[in-house]
Parts: sequence; C-alpha cells; structure tokens
Amino acid sequence: MIYFDNAATSRPKPECVYKAFEYYIREIGTSPGRGCYDLAIQASRMLYQTRKTVASFFGVDKPDKVVFTKNSTEAINFFFNGYLKKGDHVIISPFEHNAVLRPLHTQKEHGIIDYSVLPEDVLYEHKDNLIKYIKPNTALVVLTLASNLTGQVVFSKELAEIARNANIPVFVDASQGAGKKIINMSFDGVDYLAFTGHKDLLALPGVGGLISSRQLQIQPLIQGGTGIHGESYVNPQAFPDSYEAGTLNMPAIWSLKVSLDYICDNIDEIIQKEKRLVNLCITELEKNPSIVIYRPYLHRVSTFCFNIKDIPSSIVVEKLSKKRICVRGGIHCAIKAHETLGTVETGAVRVSMNYNNSEDEVEEFLNVIKEMT
Amino acid sequence: MIYFDNAATSRPKPECVYKAFEYYIREIGTSPGRGCYDLAIQASRMLYQTRKTVASFFGVDKPDKVVFTKNSTEAINFFFNGYLKKGDHVIISPFEHNAVLRPLHTQKEHGIIDYSVLPEDVLYEHKDNLIKYIKPNTALVVLTLASNLTGQVVFSKELAEIARNANIPVFVDASQGAGKKIINMSFDGVDYLAFTGHKDLLALPGVGGLISSRQLQIQPLIQGGTGIHGESYVNPQAFPDSYEAGTLNMPAIWSLKVSLDYICDNIDEIIQKEKRLVNLCITELEKNPSIVIYRPYLHRVSTFCFNIKDIPSSIVVEKLSKKRICVRGGIHCAIKAHETLGTVETGAVRVSMNYNNSEDEVEEFLNVIKEMT
Repeated sequence: MIYFDNAATSRPKPECVYKAFEYYIREIGTSPGRGCYDLAIQASRMLYQTRKTVASFFGVDKPDKVVFTKNSTEAINFFFNGYLKKGDHVIISPFEHNAVLRPLHTQKEHGIIDYSVLPEDVLYEHKDNLIKYIKPNTALVVLTLASNLTGQVVFSKELAEIARNANIPVFVDASQGAGKKIINMSFDGVDYLAFTGHKDLLALPGVGGLISSRQLQIQPLIQGGTGIHGESYVNPQAFPDSYEAGTLNMPAIWSLKVSLDYICDNIDEIIQKEKRLVNLCITELEKNPSIVIYRPYLHRVSTFCFNIKDIPSSIVVEKLSKKRICVRGGIHCAIKAHETLGTVETGAVRVSMNYNNSEDEVEEFLNVIKEMT
Repeated sequence: MIYFDNAATSRPKPECVYKAFEYYIREIGTSPGRGCYDLAIQASRMLYQTRKTVASFFGVDKPDKVVFTKNSTEAINFFFNGYLKKGDHVIISPFEHNAVLRPLHTQKEHGIIDYSVLPEDVLYEHKDNLIKYIKPNTALVVLTLASNLTGQVVFSKELAEIARNANIPVFVDASQGAGKKIINMSFDGVDYLAFTGHKDLLALPGVGGLISSRQLQIQPLIQGGTGIHGESYVNPQAFPDSYEAGTLNMPAIWSLKVSLDYICDNIDEIIQKEKRLVNLCITELEKNPSIVIYRPYLHRVSTFCFNIKDIPSSIVVEKLSKKRICVRGGIHCAIKAHETLGTVETGAVRVSMNYNNSEDEVEEFLNVIKEMT
C-alpha cells in the first residue's frame, strides 16, 4: 500500500510517538490538575513540558500562551467566537480550509461580522495590494500556512508585516505546513496561530491548539470543570486553563511533545526528503500532456493536486485505490481553494506525501498514472 | 499504589481496550469519511460500528442519534448552546458538575436563560414537587446520573416521567455512572444524554458524546470540515456529521467500542464487585466517630466522600498521597454539590473505586485512616 494522504492524517507516526503514547496510557493514565498524588502531579508536569515545547516550537516565549484543544477546527472556532465582535471585518486568503470559512460565514449569516477573500495575486505578486482590502473595521487577517489542496505556501512574512503595519493582527491556520515549514510567530510577525497534532506535526489524533503571542482574554467557547477555582460559577480568569474546560486528552498531548522533539531533531532531513519526492513527482507528471497540475511552480509543502483531462477526479482516485494507492479526490473541505483553481465541478486528485514515502513509491504511482493516460 | 480516583479517570483500562487502541493507531491510522481507499473505508466502518454500539448501550434505536465530541463537557456545551433559546428556563439538580452549571450560568449572565436549582428532597422523598419548579418557559430538566462527589444516584425514571408528563424534555449528564448503572434512554424516558469515554465507560481519553432520542437539528458549536458536502459555506444539514466538524479522534472512538463491549460482557460482575468494595468501606468508616460520610445510605455508584473532623480535607488527601493512596480533595469541579452538602469551606475527600480495586486495598486504606483519627 502507498499512503499519499498525509494531508488528512500523517501515517505512520515515528515509533517514538507510538511508544510515548503507550507509555502514557499504561504507566501514567491520570488527568493533570485533578489531584495531588504522584501520578497526577506527573501528569501536570508532562502537560507543562508539552506546553513549553509547543511554545518554543512556534516561537512564543511563554507556555501559558498555548491553549490545547481537540484539533485545529476547535481552536479556530474558539478563537473566532471569542475574539470577533459585532461589526468586525475579516480578510482571508483564497485558500482557506472550511474550518476557517465556515465559522466566519456562519457569523456573517448571523449579521455579526463580514469578511473579504483576497485574490490570489495579492499573496504573491502584489502583496502591497493587501492594504486595499483593509477597512476601518478590519479586525483580523487570516492566512493558511499552506493550502491543504495544492500544498502551496500561502502565509508570508511580508504579508504579515503589511497587515501589522496597518495595526491588523494576523492569524495563521498552521494545520497544513507546521512541521514541514518552520514558522516562528515572533520572527514571522504572527499574532495568533492554530495547529493540529495529527497531520504534519506527527502526533496522534485528539490534540490541537491555539497559540497567542499575547495573553488571551476572550470568552471561552466551552465552560466547565477546569480543575482550579472550582468554586466559581463560570470558568475562572486563569490562562490557559480557562479555555481548556473538561478533561484534557493527555495521551495525545504527550505524543505531541515527543513528535515535536522528533521533528526538531530531523527537520532538515524531513524537508529535504519531502522536497525531493514531490519535485520528482511533479516534474514527471508535468511531461504528460493529459495532466493538469495546479500551481506546480509555487513554493510548497509536500502536497499537490492534479486532474487528468477528461477523467473525473473521483474515477482517478478510485482507480488508484484499486492499485492500493491512497490519495483523495473531491473538494477536500476547501471550497474556496477549488473556486480559486476553477475546479469546483471536477474536484481534484490530491497527493500528499511525507518523509516516510520513498522514490520507489513515487515511481509506482507515476507508472499507474501513465497507464491511465 | 492504590488508585481511588476513578471518578476523575478510570485506571487501568481493560487490556482489550489498550490493545484496540494500539491496533487502531498502528494498523489503521486513517481518518473516516476522508477518502475512498480501503483503510479510509475501514475507518468509516469502525466509526459506524462504534456509533451503533453506543446507541444500543444507551437504548436509542439509530446510530445517527450519536454525536461524538472530545468529552462530555464539549457535548454539554454544544447541546446547551444550540438547544436553549432566549427566554428559556432550565431546572437542574443540586448535584450538577460545573460542566453543567458553568455553561448555564454563563448564558444567564448574558441574559439569555435563567435556571433554578432543585432542593435535594425533590430528588428522593418529594419527587412530585418537581412540578412546582416548572415555569411556562421551562425548556429542560437536567439531572446528573450520579454525583461526581458523593456517588449518589441523582437521576430517576420517576423524575423523568414527571418532567415528560409536563412536556419538559429531560437531559442526563451521564459522565458519572454510565457503565456502573444501566441507563436506557427509551426505557428511562431520557431525551438527551451526554457521556464521556474515559471514566466509567473505560475507554481512553479524547472521546465523549451527545445522544438525542430524536434527530437533533440545532446550531453546531463548531463549524468546519465535515468530509461531506465540502462545497457548502456552512456545515451541511447532515446528521450527526454536522456536529462533528474537524478530524474525529478515531483511536479513542474505537477504544470506546471495545470498552463498551467489555462492559456489556461483565456488567454484573463489575456492579457486584464495586458494590461490595464501597459498602465495606463505608460500613467500616461509619463506625469511626471522627468521620463524617456524606449521604452514606443513598443508592450510589462506587464513589463516596467524607471528612475527618477537625482535619482539613487537603491535609487528609496529602497524608493519603504519602501512603501512595490516590484520592482527591477540594471542590471536585462541583460547587453546587458542595453547597448542598455544606462543605464549601472544608471541601471533602473523595474516594472513587472501580472493579480493579480489591478488598486488600480497601483494608489498607481503612488502616491508614484509622491511624489518622
């Protein structure tokens, strides 16, 4: 089997990640902040260590700026829900995932906010034009780190700088890209960032989060037990605890600590290997006149998408599945990106690799595609 | 080490639960509903199987009435947020966890709803008095299945019947009790129920859910990728998918399938063993005049709480920790329950057992307590 669906969930994880997870569930197995016995204290320490590692990984100075959620979708919803106020305006890139579009569109339908979608050229050739989209009530510029469809890198330090010079905070959806492309919130000028563990960060499912460059004081999306100030009738004003009501998914959180350490130790090899694989793939496919690759020449992570002329993407994906090659067709929960590419009707075939893949797998994939065209 | 903190998180899990989890993360490792290749289809099937098992476990007829969340806190917030309308009134028991109290109190502070807290006697001696608390705008009666502090069973079929006869739907927070006490939503007259996997249901952390006796059509708390109808700008009207935006925590979900099967196979032994242990403990402690046990004679799950006269609960818990006995003191994220017991100032020492505990452990615990009094 050839697994090219890493943009959905990376697979397999590094052995140390499985081991860390298994260690947590079998040897620790307790919740943090819920008791004063040894194993509960150990759980709290492991939570703190992970928070510290995440903060450092994304270039913020303090662990308490990291809020853990179940995935990036929860993080994005929680942030937009608490941060945006009635009358606000938001600017988004034309490659945002539905996890960004849908909460914003829902707020728009409820008459709370409005949003504008940037044209693609503002991301690359005409960055200065971002300023034209800024209104007096613009509260946020939202940029995905990389497109979950084309793999192209969307966020840039230059765009962030333009926004910040106009006093507009920048929010990055790093669900795709973090772990494959280094992003440092302090250096890159990012105010808020959402991440998920189970994709490029190589952790197990069930952990994501929101990182804020300054201490966040917004309304929590979820109210409940926080393990501290139990006497209060609402979540206490304590950060990040106030945003983490309910039992945290500590085994997944601990797996993230170990996966981030793994990434930091191997980041150069990961980036090089993936670049080689994806370039090999795109270069070969480009030679085939029956194939359209979308945005082949942009700086990207190890994801790209294509269509074979006259064959619906769903058929291509099905044929590849029969050859035990796992890719994904359809809309990929990213309608804005498909509108931008002009592929709403056809969908597209997405190939998303990671460092576990090999040249041999790429060759096999290319051979199967050749047979189909 | 003696682990008596199962009301926080049950520990250890049955071996088959660890094994199921490990199987999922190593052998499957994909997301459901995100592809058409074999492993993605297998993930979707496993998701469906778990949904079916959960539905059957709680006595609802169709799997699509089960919505998976990260824990019961999210389920409760998501339900209250979507279900309650401006001007609604809610009735809650005096033993609700902060996961119920805080979202309701927040809505109250925002001028959306109001709520009343039942006095304890309505739960047991004077159930008919529930009717006195019902107002023309009462939209919901909320009852915890069991108190997370005293272990007493709070929900009763009779209370549910009174509410339903008055056309008021019943919501049960089954975070404590499900897995130790059988609850069948059809038979017991429950309209909505929230559960969490990692406590008495013996699953791994990161899965909970909301079950609705009828198909739920409310505003989702979280908008984002649903894997279907990706072209829609908001979550599609498809259930339960509409409430599960973002990547589901499939390894934890699959562990829940296996843990529920385990419980169904062993429910009688689990209930008998836990009853024996908790009765032995309470009976012995009752003989000690220095000890106050709260609600010792009520029907309960295997949790109880106590105080030693003149010793703050925090000191007792610390001393027990030093003897490697894991219990929890303080407020247990249940301020209403402590107000009801009159223990807001002192807190209480909570002992929560499960079927893994032994008579020897109970004896050791009793000996340590004897030394302290």
